[in-house]
Amino acid sequence: MGLTSFVKMFMPKDKVFYGLFEEVAVVLSDMASVFTAAINETDAGKRSQLLKSLEELEHKNDEITHKIFIELGRNFITPFDREDIHSLATSLDDIADFIWAAAKRITNYSMEDTDPITLDFSAVITKSINSLNKAVRELRDMKDLRSITESCVIINSLENEGDELLDKAMMNLFSSSIDPVEIIKRKDLYEMLEIVTDKCEDAANVIESIIIKYA
Amino acid sequence: MGLTSFVKMFMPKDKVFYGLFEEVAVVLSDMASVFTAAINETDAGKRSQLLKSLEELEHKNDEITHKIFIELGRNFITPFDREDIHSLATSLDDIADFIWAAAKRITNYSMEDTDPITLDFSAVITKSINSLNKAVRELRDMKDLRSITESCVIINSLENEGDELLDKAMMNLFSSSIDPVEIIKRKDLYEMLEIVTDKCEDAANVIESIIIKYA
Amino acid sequence: MGLTSFVKMFMPKDKVFYGLFEEVAVVLSDMASVFTAAINETDAGKRSQLLKSLEELEHKNDEITHKIFIELGRNFITPFDREDIHSLATSLDDIADFIWAAAKRITNYSMEDTDPITLDFSAVITKSINSLNKAVRELRDMKDLRSITESCVIINSLENEGDELLDKAMMNLFSSSIDPVEIIKRKDLYEMLEIVTDKCEDAANVIESIIIKYA
Repeated sequence: MGLTSFVKMFMPKDKVFYGLFEEVAVVLSDMASVFTAAINETDAGKRSQLLKSLEELEHKNDEITHKIFIELGRNFITPFDREDIHSLATSLDDIADFIWAAAKRITNYSMEDTDPITLDFSAVITKSINSLNKAVRELRDMKDLRSITESCVIINSLENEGDELLDKAMMNLFSSSIDPVEIIKRKDLYEMLEIVTDKCEDAANVIESIIIKYA
Repeated sequence: MGLTSFVKMFMPKDKVFYGLFEEVAVVLSDMASVFTAAINETDAGKRSQLLKSLEELEHKNDEITHKIFIELGRNFITPFDREDIHSLATSLDDIADFIWAAAKRITNYSMEDTDPITLDFSAVITKSINSLNKAVRELRDMKDLRSITESCVIINSLENEGDELLDKAMMNLFSSSIDPVEIIKRKDLYEMLEIVTDKCEDAANVIESIIIKYA
Repeated sequence: MGLTSFVKMFMPKDKVFYGLFEEVAVVLSDMASVFTAAINETDAGKRSQLLKSLEELEHKNDEITHKIFIELGRNFITPFDREDIHSLATSLDDIADFIWAAAKRITNYSMEDTDPITLDFSAVITKSINSLNKAVRELRDMKDLRSITESCVIINSLENEGDELLDKAMMNLFSSSIDPVEIIKRKDLYEMLEIVTDKCEDAANVIESIIIKYA
């Protein structure tokens, strides 16, 4: 028996969820970093490499999410409501899915230039995922509920920024005489990026509902 | 202590949900009215003002929905299954979100003319939200289950009307030689409006599943 | 009292769910067959007839799904977790909805040619629904958990095939100089078809989570 298995045997069974959620949050941070690096990369080959590497991260996230659901099936005792664990896992998984969906648009539609709107979105997403990491880490000891709430408030306001960014982008897109095919591509990409900020807010809302029950 | 707080103190805790759902239903009615007024308004300035005012209503709805979730976290006793309260709150919130999403399309895509399809959709949505208001108000005393069922049946048939409206709109859009950018705009707007009728049906389905448990 | 009612009276109440899920799975198989026949049909009249007949199947599926929800409201004892029954019914219903949504695109957008991508998608969807039928039938006695797991693994890998098919289709669509209106039509149709494979995977995931609790 390895040390890890030995420790795990004596670890209260419900603690496993904290670790898994933290792992997911770290993968999301990695995805935000790689996405930002990709859209800032001017070399086409390197760029496409970076975008492709998001797929592995998305798979890694899928595996951890799968583990969460398996543990949820196994564990009678959970640190917070089963439905909250399910919702949190689902919304975090959605974040990964939509970052990956955005990256695929860039690849599939051969979008090559560094687009200021996409850069703005990636900044909002990175901030939102950072706050999510902070909140998820603080769930473990539930010491500083106010700090968790603050992270959730930040994520909510970043979702608003995402909304405004999309509005501005759409107004620009449809007021100019851009080629229709270009409109189709950009509209689709921006909508995916805005959904990422929505899904971060969904996760924050689950976290808020968890801590309300502890307040 | 104000009178309201005093009354609330002695009100059975689970009654709070009825009032909150009724508040949400009233906001949805207001949104349907304002949306209808906006698309019938020929003055561009007034129109844009009306569309903008939907945002406040959508925020108001968000706040009430938030209160429902907080009460759900607090209350051990709920008037009907916790999952049903959650689903009903979510589907009602979705109605507000998609009315607001439709309004934003009109603004962001600078769609200025009074379009017959949009008028037809707004009539269907208004009727559906009226029936929803009736059903939600009758949940409080559960006296007339048949009347609640009737409202749900009406909402279901209005969703079918919404479907047919979208089909007709799409056939028109793609059979004529309309400019592709115009197709993108209209397709997107109509799809949002059709989703509003879907979300009304979702809410009606939750209400039906609530009253089945009482029958 | 007819024989069926008589038998039903003595049938353990929780067994009703297996039969209903099997009925849904059979309707899904029929939908996959009719959809495949339609897109292979060169006669425009027959084709449109086949596509239209999917609506009846979709309604039939709605009715069975409705029965599942009613039974769920009535039955205190369920063969597996209530939330799992709910999720499985919802995801199976989504499969029917999106096959029907795809068929409507073909009709509404007057897409007349036999398109290789759509044929490929229909093959993937048919295989996935076949595996789903197998898994659903084996839920009844839970004898061969390994065989159920195998079906779920197949459905997961078919979802990956669906993803790759969509990627390939999009790259082709946007790299060629296809008319923008044609891009709008095809993009929308392919996306609906890919969602069908996603919804099959969702159903498989619910089935997996059900059998994990029995392992």
